[in-house]
Amino acid sequence: MGTGPAGRTVAVALAKLGHDVVIGTRDPRSTLARQEPNAMGLPPFASWHAEHGGIGLAAYAEAAAAAGIIVNLTNGQGSIEALTAAGAENLAGKILVDIANALDPSRGFPPSLNPVNTDSLGEQIQRAFPEAKVVKTLNNMPATLIADPGRAGGGEHTVFVSGDDAGAKLEVTSLLHSLGHEDVIDLGDISTARGPEMMMAVWLRLWTALGTADFNFKIVR
Amino acid sequence: MGTGPAGRTVAVALAKLGHDVVIGTRDPRSTLARQEPNAMGLPPFASWHAEHGGIGLAAYAEAAAAAGIIVNLTNGQGSIEALTAAGAENLAGKILVDIANALDPSRGFPPSLNPVNTDSLGEQIQRAFPEAKVVKTLNNMPATLIADPGRAGGGEHTVFVSGDDAGAKLEVTSLLHSLGHEDVIDLGDISTARGPEMMMAVWLRLWTALGTADFNFKIVR
Repeated sequence: MGTGPAGRTVAVALAKLGHDVVIGTRDPRSTLARQEPNAMGLPPFASWHAEHGGIGLAAYAEAAAAAGIIVNLTNGQGSIEALTAAGAENLAGKILVDIANALDPSRGFPPSLNPVNTDSLGEQIQRAFPEAKVVKTLNNMPATLIADPGRAGGGEHTVFVSGDDAGAKLEVTSLLHSLGHEDVIDLGDISTARGPEMMMAVWLRLWTALGTADFNFKIVR
Repeated sequence: MGTGPAGRTVAVALAKLGHDVVIGTRDPRSTLARQEPNAMGLPPFASWHAEHGGIGLAAYAEAAAAAGIIVNLTNGQGSIEALTAAGAENLAGKILVDIANALDPSRGFPPSLNPVNTDSLGEQIQRAFPEAKVVKTLNNMPATLIADPGRAGGGEHTVFVSGDDAGAKLEVTSLLHSLGHEDVIDLGDISTARGPEMMMAVWLRLWTALGTADFNFKIVR
């Protein structure tokens, strides 16, 4: 779910691993009709999609209904709305990998995080879709590193997983391993997503200080 | 400033490096009079102090007046009060290394962080004592690792510094190097302390998940 740079990059990485990938969007026709690069200079979806023929595009509900695993790479502020469009019945019983961040840019850079401290986006999604198996992971690195962990320090860094369903976390951990993420720490239930989500505060400032997004956290122990 | 385990451990580490260390406390007489271990089983200060004769003990104001560099290792919820007791005139023009975390344990474990997101303890201290040169650092690791970074991963991890005074950050960076912390990242002005302070949310959950506090974050880039 998500047609932005993160959605595109992760879609390609999963397709390369042999997964059958369909990108979910609100309205495929309007997604394909856009002609202009976005504000960040990202090429329009249609021209990207033309070069990645193996990857499907469908409305959220259609994509979710056919999916074994749903990956949320929508803007965090719109994730609940997008998942509602996908349909609770299409998420029920399935693994929902939540990679989004609930960043509020309304007061300038760096954006604030909302919710924070006593709640998290991961928990909000789990509460809104109680039959989905939400696993929060990968939210504190750019999609380029999700897809290719070796871009920073030869891949020697750490990924967190948070979720209430142990089996879902194991399956997501396998998926992470297949992407090249070897050091995966299970933080606990979905409420532990507050930790990695709140890391965005230092992530955004490191991005400024280092002048690159190609970094990740390693838990040295 | 601070007679707890963190204050004691850092005092010993700095004394070993040849610094003249005086621990600041509210009331030295009552600090020395305590006979019981604290709630965490920490031996009373007097018995620890008897074994560390080279380290002084003085009231906050007396300790701060004589100090070249002040290190805040008081409980974050009481730091402003303790620094007020130290006296703004005794902090003016000096480097004030703030290692504290403003954790609120009133709602159980893990504690919440307050302030968060749009403010930080580091900024609160800088605003309260505008003539001090506040440098936020080291707040997201246990004192044992501050004193001996090699306890985790051979010391291959990262320390952040945040502060408005470039010279103060350089001097603190030298101090960090002398303790064995080789990878020091300057995040920017004191408002960037929000990042490392908000890392406590994941730190506390990693402490639970890993069953040890002997870990630190490395920024792999």
